[in-house]
Amino acid sequence: MTIFSDRHIGTTAETQRVMLEALGVDTSDPSMSLETLMRGAVPASILSEPAATSAIPPAATEAEALAELRAFASRNRVNRSMIGLGYYGTLTPSVIQRNVLENPSWYTAYTPYQPEISQGRLEALINFQTMVADLTGLSTANASMLDESTAVAEGMLLARRASKAKSEVFVVDADAFPQTKAILETRAAALGIELVERDLAGGEALPDELFGVLVQYPGASGRVWDPSAVIDAAHVAGGLAVVAADLLALTLTSSPGSLGADVAVGTTQRFGVPMGFGGPHAGYMAVRQGLERQLPGRLVGVSVDADGKPAYRLSLQTREQHIRREKATSNICTAQVLLAVMAAMYAVYHGPDGLRQIAGDVASKAAVLGDWLAERGVEVVHETYFDTLQVRVPGEAAEIVRRAHDELGILLHLAGPDLLSIAVDETTTFAELSAVSTLFGAPARVFDARGDGTRARIPNALHRTDDYLTHPVFHVHHSETAMMRYLKSLADRDYALDRGMIPLGSCTMKLNAATEMASITWPEFAGIHPFAPASDVEGYLDMIDQLESWLAEVTGYDAVSLQPNAGSQGELAGLLAIRGYHLANGDDHRTVCLIPSSAHGTNAASAVLAGMKVVVVACDELGNVDLDDLRAKITAHADEIAALMITYPSTHGVYEQDVVEVTAAVHDAGGQVYVDGANLNALLGYARFGDLGGDVSHLNLHKTFAIPHGGGGPGIGPVAAKAHLAPHLPSHPLAQRAVHAGGYEFAGGPVSAAPYGSAGILPISWSYVRMMGASGLRDATAAAVLSANYIAARLGEHFPVLYTGENDRVAHECILDLRPLKEATGITVDDVAKRLIDYGFHAPTMSFPVPGTLMVEPTESEDLGEIDRFIEAMIMIKHEADAVASARWPRRGQPARARAAHRRLADLGGVEPRLLA
Amino acid sequence: MTIFSDRHIGTTAETQRVMLEALGVDTSDPSMSLETLMRGAVPASILSEPAATSAIPPAATEAEALAELRAFASRNRVNRSMIGLGYYGTLTPSVIQRNVLENPSWYTAYTPYQPEISQGRLEALINFQTMVADLTGLSTANASMLDESTAVAEGMLLARRASKAKSEVFVVDADAFPQTKAILETRAAALGIELVERDLAGGEALPDELFGVLVQYPGASGRVWDPSAVIDAAHVAGGLAVVAADLLALTLTSSPGSLGADVAVGTTQRFGVPMGFGGPHAGYMAVRQGLERQLPGRLVGVSVDADGKPAYRLSLQTREQHIRREKATSNICTAQVLLAVMAAMYAVYHGPDGLRQIAGDVASKAAVLGDWLAERGVEVVHETYFDTLQVRVPGEAAEIVRRAHDELGILLHLAGPDLLSIAVDETTTFAELSAVSTLFGAPARVFDARGDGTRARIPNALHRTDDYLTHPVFHVHHSETAMMRYLKSLADRDYALDRGMIPLGSCTMKLNAATEMASITWPEFAGIHPFAPASDVEGYLDMIDQLESWLAEVTGYDAVSLQPNAGSQGELAGLLAIRGYHLANGDDHRTVCLIPSSAHGTNAASAVLAGMKVVVVACDELGNVDLDDLRAKITAHADEIAALMITYPSTHGVYEQDVVEVTAAVHDAGGQVYVDGANLNALLGYARFGDLGGDVSHLNLHKTFAIPHGGGGPGIGPVAAKAHLAPHLPSHPLAQRAVHAGGYEFAGGPVSAAPYGSAGILPISWSYVRMMGASGLRDATAAAVLSANYIAARLGEHFPVLYTGENDRVAHECILDLRPLKEATGITVDDVAKRLIDYGFHAPTMSFPVPGTLMVEPTESEDLGEIDRFIEAMIMIKHEADAVASARWPRRGQPARARAAHRRLADLGGVEPRLLA
Repeated sequence: MTIFSDRHIGTTAETQRVMLEALGVDTSDPSMSLETLMRGAVPASILSEPAATSAIPPAATEAEALAELRAFASRNRVNRSMIGLGYYGTLTPSVIQRNVLENPSWYTAYTPYQPEISQGRLEALINFQTMVADLTGLSTANASMLDESTAVAEGMLLARRASKAKSEVFVVDADAFPQTKAILETRAAALGIELVERDLAGGEALPDELFGVLVQYPGASGRVWDPSAVIDAAHVAGGLAVVAADLLALTLTSSPGSLGADVAVGTTQRFGVPMGFGGPHAGYMAVRQGLERQLPGRLVGVSVDADGKPAYRLSLQTREQHIRREKATSNICTAQVLLAVMAAMYAVYHGPDGLRQIAGDVASKAAVLGDWLAERGVEVVHETYFDTLQVRVPGEAAEIVRRAHDELGILLHLAGPDLLSIAVDETTTFAELSAVSTLFGAPARVFDARGDGTRARIPNALHRTDDYLTHPVFHVHHSETAMMRYLKSLADRDYALDRGMIPLGSCTMKLNAATEMASITWPEFAGIHPFAPASDVEGYLDMIDQLESWLAEVTGYDAVSLQPNAGSQGELAGLLAIRGYHLANGDDHRTVCLIPSSAHGTNAASAVLAGMKVVVVACDELGNVDLDDLRAKITAHADEIAALMITYPSTHGVYEQDVVEVTAAVHDAGGQVYVDGANLNALLGYARFGDLGGDVSHLNLHKTFAIPHGGGGPGIGPVAAKAHLAPHLPSHPLAQRAVHAGGYEFAGGPVSAAPYGSAGILPISWSYVRMMGASGLRDATAAAVLSANYIAARLGEHFPVLYTGENDRVAHECILDLRPLKEATGITVDDVAKRLIDYGFHAPTMSFPVPGTLMVEPTESEDLGEIDRFIEAMIMIKHEADAVASARWPRRGQPARARAAHRRLADLGGVEPRLLA
Repeated sequence: MTIFSDRHIGTTAETQRVMLEALGVDTSDPSMSLETLMRGAVPASILSEPAATSAIPPAATEAEALAELRAFASRNRVNRSMIGLGYYGTLTPSVIQRNVLENPSWYTAYTPYQPEISQGRLEALINFQTMVADLTGLSTANASMLDESTAVAEGMLLARRASKAKSEVFVVDADAFPQTKAILETRAAALGIELVERDLAGGEALPDELFGVLVQYPGASGRVWDPSAVIDAAHVAGGLAVVAADLLALTLTSSPGSLGADVAVGTTQRFGVPMGFGGPHAGYMAVRQGLERQLPGRLVGVSVDADGKPAYRLSLQTREQHIRREKATSNICTAQVLLAVMAAMYAVYHGPDGLRQIAGDVASKAAVLGDWLAERGVEVVHETYFDTLQVRVPGEAAEIVRRAHDELGILLHLAGPDLLSIAVDETTTFAELSAVSTLFGAPARVFDARGDGTRARIPNALHRTDDYLTHPVFHVHHSETAMMRYLKSLADRDYALDRGMIPLGSCTMKLNAATEMASITWPEFAGIHPFAPASDVEGYLDMIDQLESWLAEVTGYDAVSLQPNAGSQGELAGLLAIRGYHLANGDDHRTVCLIPSSAHGTNAASAVLAGMKVVVVACDELGNVDLDDLRAKITAHADEIAALMITYPSTHGVYEQDVVEVTAAVHDAGGQVYVDGANLNALLGYARFGDLGGDVSHLNLHKTFAIPHGGGGPGIGPVAAKAHLAPHLPSHPLAQRAVHAGGYEFAGGPVSAAPYGSAGILPISWSYVRMMGASGLRDATAAAVLSANYIAARLGEHFPVLYTGENDRVAHECILDLRPLKEATGITVDDVAKRLIDYGFHAPTMSFPVPGTLMVEPTESEDLGEIDRFIEAMIMIKHEADAVASARWPRRGQPARARAAHRRLADLGGVEPRLLA
């Protein structure tokens, strides 16, 4: 009976009236008063009426949405994948699924920027980093990458930055995964990098000049070989060696570090994270000593708290795009924290002996099948392998793969007309091996546990001999009881949405409803390989199709790709589409990307990666794009203009009045308009990017569309575009279909390892839209804007509100200027943020976009009670600061009390000191 | 790869060796050393070897067990139930499912005997009590009952105790639920109560003499009528009126209290708790002022903490069976806390307006269908109803019910050859009403939302006019965000297994593994009505059959009934089977039940309810049954002996040497032996009740077989018996089958409302046995006994260990005598228990079975680290007590510090004072 939007939106008609009255809005007609506010805030030039018809059906109840998802699920066929290629069946320990993946204390947390209330997930990430560094044999690992293939691309860029060679050549292992090769091509083309493919395992020599080489270890063909000679040769040429390695294989084989690698990358998916039709999973990257500052992404380190006790915190942020902008090491903002936590906990739960046992079992089963095939005269191409057998069956490969699918429900990988491969994983049974054996022209061989003594087919020289995962954390939580308590003890140290408001400007920490989350662990969504045949994933494809069309409609675009698995990747995809468009028009010279000075650093970093040159446009004193400067820059760069990137509402949380003039000016100059969708939460249902002049945008499903932040990932960053850019949106070499909703065929290069990115969590956003309906989305926007304006109005007398639009309204967030407070009292924005923790709140966004300020975004999910508590806490802190100023309190009293929170957490949690491995 | 028992059992081969060495056991042969301990502890006379063959298959992995459960699930057919009769479709709010039912912080908690670490669930239970008291219009409600029908039986017994009438007559409403009537018959027969059925709604007069009357409101036929005249008449006769009322109906109709009822009972299932093929659900009972001390079950009240702040605690425990033994108000020990929490939170989430809206929608839909049927000339029997229509279709009822099932997938209730009933619930759609309409000989009437304005068919005089659920808690948590935070804030105040050990002697707080819990929310298990036809529940019935046979095998019995939904009910069922056996043999005089003085109070309370006379047998100084006294009592009561009840291992945690002599003596006297299964955790795989002379036992699935304690329920108490008692085990008038595993047909009266009791959670125990296998169960026993002996050995030098058996070994628990400590220092067992909380542990069992002692049961799930931390905490407390004794600490220092825990929790949680409504 209950309408979902009434559960999602925290304020009620009654409390909204109270808030509107506080804002001086006429509430005599209750049905119109919220509309009055919105009409006063959103410029008339962009305001759209609710559409009479919509691709989005009327809001479903929670039960109805789940029933529709069950119908989609029933149209997916969970066949047993033996495809491999970086995605493997895995057993998610139930204790981890329940207490991490299904626990809001983990999945609703924000990025751990506030260490005092993040020690739990910071410890989990240190476990992840330790695991990766240990297994790869390198000194430092980061807190996860978006996926393996983009991690390889980042590795290539790292090599390019760090290499002293004067070369633009990067050598790619011929035996690399196909999706990795495709991504490298996309990324290299934009930057003028020359990719050279070599059969490295086959002994093909490296070119004389190169800045780096990629080795896949084991190869896509399954082959395990010793790449140390290739690595040495790359070093001689002045290049760096990037090794894409399988973490499970590394429990048995020599580590990349021991073989001389500079960088190791890969995925941690098979450490207990379901395949999910492609993601999300945590990729990884580790580097040798000396390359730490070149690492992209987030890095957790060990610091000390106010009392000198060890505590975890994010480290080396000076590398990152929000500080270095176009000079950053990468455009990646987020990580895959939730999945990294799961993978790390898988290692914690199994320990090194358990992992070795799993790997040994996998390798032995592969060997059992390999030996039997060889005995039967079937050609197993490589003598050494870990889990994947490449089999040569001249002319028969396709037919065998078809029979495996149709008759056995088993998916093999067709590697060519004569070649197929068979990948064994943790879930493979002897019965499945027996079934597979029937495909090769003989009665089934009955494999059983007695066949398990076979030695893995790993070359003797590559047998791993050194210890790993020696830290006690990998040795003491092996019973389920111990594991459950460890996870609980970590969660207890953290603050997530289940404790209170996280009013982070620009980050939109709204409710992640339990119903939205419910389906992602259903086997029909979780158990699917990203390269499964189209006939196995009809439910997925139809759900994706619906979501694409819904997102297109609400943004005013024609086509949507859900492939980018983070906002940064969507941004890159959008810019690459613009690049592709200009190139297709012969406009090779259009390489200038105009970016307002107020833009998020990622915009600039992405533009660079898309091969563009960043030109900064000034903003006026209100934070809006300076039209005069824009025109001047357009004139100066004339027909070099590729694009303008603009965030709407602006990064200052304001509906700029002149946005249509801005976009028109760019179009007049032959440029394309990129609208950053970070602030879509303030617009949905009231205006559309496409209507205000946007040609392409990325959206953040983890902001506006209820994907949980997961403590710093997963994100999903779909790219949406007008029809003329659609052909340049990302395709994928292994995609189940090329044509997307609306009939558009995409042909741009891929930006994620999987065709539909993090498809496994798309049911969340699908459910959100399905249960809100078009009108619920619109209501949410108004509620979010109302709450932001209410906070601005009530706190304005205590802290100046920077930047407002028409009628003095803000959009969905407001910037509180704390610089006068600091001037008067010495109390800084940091002090206030920490003090808010004492009051039971997560701090708002600090010093972005303006240093010395707090940007507050309550979202629509907070109720008036929580909003009022926040306001009262801020006012109380102001009074405390005034007391400091008037010397009634000691100057250090207030900040010292604030810091106590950190100490308290450390005491409670018994934070265990551990240096970066 | 990992063996589940290695995850379930906390100690490893390595740590077990350390522990065995500490016990002086020879560990030179690692494969034998644990066996050496067990052979030294368990008397040779009862020790059994592992069976060569077993009904229990070899241990499955977690994935395999889930796959088998999915296969069972796929053989259940989730048809839409419109059966009613106390079980209704309901929408479990996802936020409650995820954050309560699927959250170990709620489901692994123990009964809230330690209020300092239970304020969360105590508040939830106060919400439950407030909800029930408000809706029933009575002054005091308890913290839940086992189910509606047993609550009615308890209501009957309450009326008998409280009535001043000298009558044994209890009047039963002819329109009561059939399962309720059957249970009343079972219970009345054992106690000599005369049941008289009357058509109360039809105006049939009450007999002149009676001690009570039951009114079903609305009736099983759906009829809503005003019972106040009947209630008045009952009062005139000196009897009490018990009204079994539907809580959802009560949101629209006059409350039982306002109609004069003394007692209201019922179920809260339809408040968001899945039907689960019968349970578990929380029944309820509320009473008018003056009857509080007659209430059975648990009662939460508001008290003050050490600082005078309000806090919740269990109240009026002096009524209960563990204190009053055979004079207790009831034999019920546990409640249905987890389900009561869910139902209470459903009311918190919807609030009074939401509940009224749901009820109005249900009532309107019923009326829409009723009106349409009436227009079509179909006879709707009653003019006034809430959700259930009784329809007269002469001669056609069975055929229509069959067609509904076979053609529409809808279950109707066949109430007679000419009668059927149709119950509408929260989940009923207009499409379903349209489908049902086709059964009555005409094209479908297309019902839709426009039909929703119809006024419910509730008599005007019974329209509810008073307010309810006025407390703020029912008004502020209506957004999902607010609800999630409320649940989190409550869970944060509590201590459950996810924080640390709960070493409660006799309560066996072992791991409730996530895999075991996973399937209970699958629709195929959760969405089934207990009276669904057998063809719909093949998966359930086969799973139940397996579990029955496994439990029979491990206990050495022939037949098992899973119907009893708590240990107390299993005990009663077992004693009733003994009673039935003696009666069938013509031994009407066998009514004496021998109970050792050390027995749990429930034994005596159950014996009384089974119509037996309790005769206490003395125990010797070692806590064992005094054989001489036993023989003397047998001689004294000669052929009156019905049974001996004995707990094995004894309530003192000792393997009595003479148990076979004890049981033989009883058998020689013609008596039956009832073995209380509370301590089965110390025996499984090493000895069997049936082999040591038991004729019948109840087991506690929530102790030995991993059903979570849920903060004080659900429990499951199967009764297991030798073949000669099987015919007297519980049957059920609506059971899908009469024949159970082993081919035994049960014909005793039912003891639970549903044929298979709390069937919905049987997958938990099934999974436990399936994943442990026979050898895992045996390993668990040895690990539990080892840990108990290790604690006894290490703490023995600080606190005397009371009672040991052969070779000075204890069984699975040990009693630490704190009386010498109190003598020397004044520090009491309570002080030590509270101080343990400060050290991060739940207190062991206090002063049971011996006042002034602590009974410690670590279970097999705790690892050595946690056990050692507990031991060290106890030693530290001993040192603190010695410091008090030597006046180095102030005498009140230690207890005061202990009490601080309570204050701290109250401060943290902001406990909100609320008196019993």
